Amino acid sequence: MATPGPTYVPQEILLSGAQELIHHRSPHMEEVMKEVNERLPVLFGTTQEVFIMLSSGTGAMEAAVANCFQEKDKVLVVSNGYFGERFADIARVYGIETVEIVSPWGTSVDMHDIEKAYYENLDVKGILVVYSETSTGVTNNVEEIGKFFRDKNVLVVVDAISGLLSHDFQMDAWGVDVALAASHKGFMMPPGLAFAAISKKAWLRLEHINPKTYYFSFKRFKKFYPMSPSSPGVSLIFALRTSIEMLMREGIESCYQRHQMIAEATQKGLEALGFELFVADSKRRSNTVTTAIAPPGLDTSRLIKILSSQYGMTITGGQGEFKGKMLRVGHIGSVDSLDLFTVFGAIELALTDMGLAFTKGSSAAAIQPIMQRGASGVEIIST
Amino acid sequence: MATPGPTYVPQEILLSGAQELIHHRSPHMEEVMKEVNERLPVLFGTTQEVFIMLSSGTGAMEAAVANCFQEKDKVLVVSNGYFGERFADIARVYGIETVEIVSPWGTSVDMHDIEKAYYENLDVKGILVVYSETSTGVTNNVEEIGKFFRDKNVLVVVDAISGLLSHDFQMDAWGVDVALAASHKGFMMPPGLAFAAISKKAWLRLEHINPKTYYFSFKRFKKFYPMSPSSPGVSLIFALRTSIEMLMREGIESCYQRHQMIAEATQKGLEALGFELFVADSKRRSNTVTTAIAPPGLDTSRLIKILSSQYGMTITGGQGEFKGKMLRVGHIGSVDSLDLFTVFGAIELALTDMGLAFTKGSSAAAIQPIMQRGASGVEIIST
Repeated sequence: MATPGPTYVPQEILLSGAQELIHHRSPHMEEVMKEVNERLPVLFGTTQEVFIMLSSGTGAMEAAVANCFQEKDKVLVVSNGYFGERFADIARVYGIETVEIVSPWGTSVDMHDIEKAYYENLDVKGILVVYSETSTGVTNNVEEIGKFFRDKNVLVVVDAISGLLSHDFQMDAWGVDVALAASHKGFMMPPGLAFAAISKKAWLRLEHINPKTYYFSFKRFKKFYPMSPSSPGVSLIFALRTSIEMLMREGIESCYQRHQMIAEATQKGLEALGFELFVADSKRRSNTVTTAIAPPGLDTSRLIKILSSQYGMTITGGQGEFKGKMLRVGHIGSVDSLDLFTVFGAIELALTDMGLAFTKGSSAAAIQPIMQRGASGVEIIST
Repeated sequence: MATPGPTYVPQEILLSGAQELIHHRSPHMEEVMKEVNERLPVLFGTTQEVFIMLSSGTGAMEAAVANCFQEKDKVLVVSNGYFGERFADIARVYGIETVEIVSPWGTSVDMHDIEKAYYENLDVKGILVVYSETSTGVTNNVEEIGKFFRDKNVLVVVDAISGLLSHDFQMDAWGVDVALAASHKGFMMPPGLAFAAISKKAWLRLEHINPKTYYFSFKRFKKFYPMSPSSPGVSLIFALRTSIEMLMREGIESCYQRHQMIAEATQKGLEALGFELFVADSKRRSNTVTTAIAPPGLDTSRLIKILSSQYGMTITGGQGEFKGKMLRVGHIGSVDSLDLFTVFGAIELALTDMGLAFTKGSSAAAIQPIMQRGASGVEIIST
């Protein structure tokens, strides 16, 4: 599985999720929740509480929107991919007016466009932005956005679902107000848990809002913290405890540097096979997923089908207008640099099956210097 | 663990949840979802589709409310326990007017009260009712309620979260419009999945409503069916497949007859120890949990503490005014009649620790005739 989530789940995590269950209101569960809740904020770069929801990442996006804003509020939405569009869709369900800042797919939002939109809409109550857009392989500059709005009456809500742990993320230092994450991404877990970290600035607003949701009400989460307001995903929380242990063992910084190295190697491998990287700005390429446009005459839908049926490898393709033209190679979670040899080996075999001409072994050759050098600008990390 | 959910999870289910993950949009996952979706309706007594949500049971309750009703709609809410009250709370979050039909805790709602409330409020759009109230150990007569409203413009929304599989439940035959369930009850699974089955009559209403929720929108679920609109709980769905297999192996009818027998035996055991059954009407006692008031001088909070610390047994007590006075012995899911000897053995040991006088072995003696006879009015079931 080389997709931008769900990811490969290490056996250590799978098995800890298969432990005998305990009651979710027992003293034993309280210990587990306390331990997990103490360690989670570090991963978000915050000293604030992180709530654990039983839902997919979409549920977390809805929770943030429903808790931070009210009907008829106006928000800015950064729209340069599928998940940015989803953020806007969710806001509209709640009767929130959206001002979309659209940039072409494959580009990062321009800070000037955000400033312009803000000064034209001084009554906005928030900005919704996706950190790493898995649909396009782009990251938005959340650090710059957070710092710009820090002293303004605007809440910065960040979908860091696939961005967390694969990129540096400093909620407090950057001025992010609500940071969202999900278990089946950098946490290397099965899907099922979603996370929300909430800043002090956000709480000042939240206290005066009666959210139009019961299940996702942050006020209810706060009331029951560190326990859960309704039945928590006990088995998934066992798995989470192991996931956090593994992440701490590696170190958060090592973790995202490993992701960066693997992303850079993937880029080189795809270029060696004649693909054109979809994200021109090398600084804004996602460490979660590498997107690339196939050389003329290569149907990526067919390639993906052969990879799956002949080699048992799941790689995703482009969505919408990029269907058949784009390849999206995921590398998030429990990915080792050596795994890339498998991924590119399978791709080369499939290209040969398709009768395409290329130099065999060229991708395997292209990824090696990066592995030996490490991610750009950082020390070599042994994974 | 002898609580009304979470329940003991058989190893067969735990381990199937620890299988290597597959991508949630893969052909393999499609097969799994189709198989699960084909078999689920049988458990609900319906031919309609059953949606699988990634949430706790509370999420399912919210989903039903948000999809079936709109702001300013009026609904009847049966209120004779904690979960009925929660239904009303959720409705109010959505700006829905609630007419509560209150009966004392420990009693089932009286059909005359429902009819009266309906004829006084002919503009109601629905009725929200809990099938098995785990807070009080009572079942409401959902069959009678469903049949009364079947030909009226009122949707019957049933929280069957703990009632399904431990009691007979016939959604279509009874005229239930929305039936809700959750994985950590009769399904013998870890918490994490919730279910909603929706009648044709309900769909006629739902089609004209823009629900104020994105994550829980039944329209989105229908659009993606049998797949999930957002990342599903893949590992939990693996577990669900095994759970359904086990339930089919036992047979649905055998399953709830087993629950009934165990409930009746629990009642006898508690009575033998001087407890007074909280639910006077023997026909309306829950097969999920048996509630009983302790004899004078027995502090159930202390009993529960000793059971947990000395004997590792989790049994819950009364909530609210019944704290310290009530015992709630759960027997749902993967419970065998022999398990009751363990439960009552531990209770007797703890009572001795507390220095209370009673005839040792009296509860073990009282439960045996029921086990040998089987549930009242049914054949003996070998489990």
